[in-house]
Amino acid sequence: MIFEKNSSKYYFHYPFPVGIVGVISSGKVNFMSAAWHTQISFAPPLYGVLISPKRYTNQLIQKSKMFSVNFLKYEDYKIAGYVGRTSGKEIDKVKLFNLKYSQGKILEVPVLENAIACYECKVVDERTYGDHILYIGEIVGIHYDENFYKDNLSRELLLYHGNDRYTFATTDSIKFGKEEVQNEIKNITSEKK
Amino acid sequence: MIFEKNSSKYYFHYPFPVGIVGVISSGKVNFMSAAWHTQISFAPPLYGVLISPKRYTNQLIQKSKMFSVNFLKYEDYKIAGYVGRTSGKEIDKVKLFNLKYSQGKILEVPVLENAIACYECKVVDERTYGDHILYIGEIVGIHYDENFYKDNLSRELLLYHGNDRYTFATTDSIKFGKEEVQNEIKNITSEKK
Repeated sequence: MIFEKNSSKYYFHYPFPVGIVGVISSGKVNFMSAAWHTQISFAPPLYGVLISPKRYTNQLIQKSKMFSVNFLKYEDYKIAGYVGRTSGKEIDKVKLFNLKYSQGKILEVPVLENAIACYECKVVDERTYGDHILYIGEIVGIHYDENFYKDNLSRELLLYHGNDRYTFATTDSIKFGKEEVQNEIKNITSEKK
Repeated sequence: MIFEKNSSKYYFHYPFPVGIVGVISSGKVNFMSAAWHTQISFAPPLYGVLISPKRYTNQLIQKSKMFSVNFLKYEDYKIAGYVGRTSGKEIDKVKLFNLKYSQGKILEVPVLENAIACYECKVVDERTYGDHILYIGEIVGIHYDENFYKDNLSRELLLYHGNDRYTFATTDSIKFGKEEVQNEIKNITSEKK
């Protein structure tokens, strides 16, 4: 194991799902890629995303106080690159990259047509930590394409690998829940006797 | 696309990396699995984890004000199940599951021997959101096993698929960064002329 005290690289938790954050404000629509996001709470349902204050998306969220988080399938990795490596300050991403979207069902947020799932989020808190702002959004509606979620498992979700690389999970998966753990505990306990 | 207004299921952002949160407090060592965590800031380096206040880990962090986040390789999925589906209130997970760990280099946190990477984190903020507490940790040291990070990309990181299922990313990955995006923009622009 290598140890680093002051590393400026933190790619060890990748691959991580790509969240495409969408905002509408004063008629402007913008999307950006986020690799820093997480579920926050079940009840109420909250989702958190980290946005740099330098981002155009941040200007828009400051006005709209709402956003969407869109999840893509692997084959749409280019969309993540398009909206992640350009700025809405300079170009109209939706127009240039011909991104199709619909309005949210509950909020005025853009639901990306290519998304396999989308959370409509209303900002309930925001807080600056270091060089990013954490936006806590209450999920007030969820869109998903049932073709990509079999038995509640997505099979093709786009993952960000760091270093501008994209990947996805294998189709292999293994179940190891409470029942399996309890069985193993029984085995361990009986071995020790 | 299916739309749900009040869904209690939020598995659409999975598969998500598994973070094994480790704490030492008053001589007690405990690990738990977390599927809700994210990088928060580069400078200073901050990492956030969500912990239910009901969790034993929460009691320990409240005292120690520090924690480790350990990342596993896929073949160690059982460890995630072991520490995720049992409670340190009832059993000594380290003893029962024979978990090996060392002390952090900077903080009094446990570094799991099976981890392919580990962040040593000092709590700099905590905040309750809904049914979970967000702990913001400053990363003061990083451990990683160079064998699992080639060209800064991990190949076998354990991912949680939801529903007690585990998976990992394929070895396929594709690069699509600023240069590739700029080239596509040139093509798009020249086509439109």
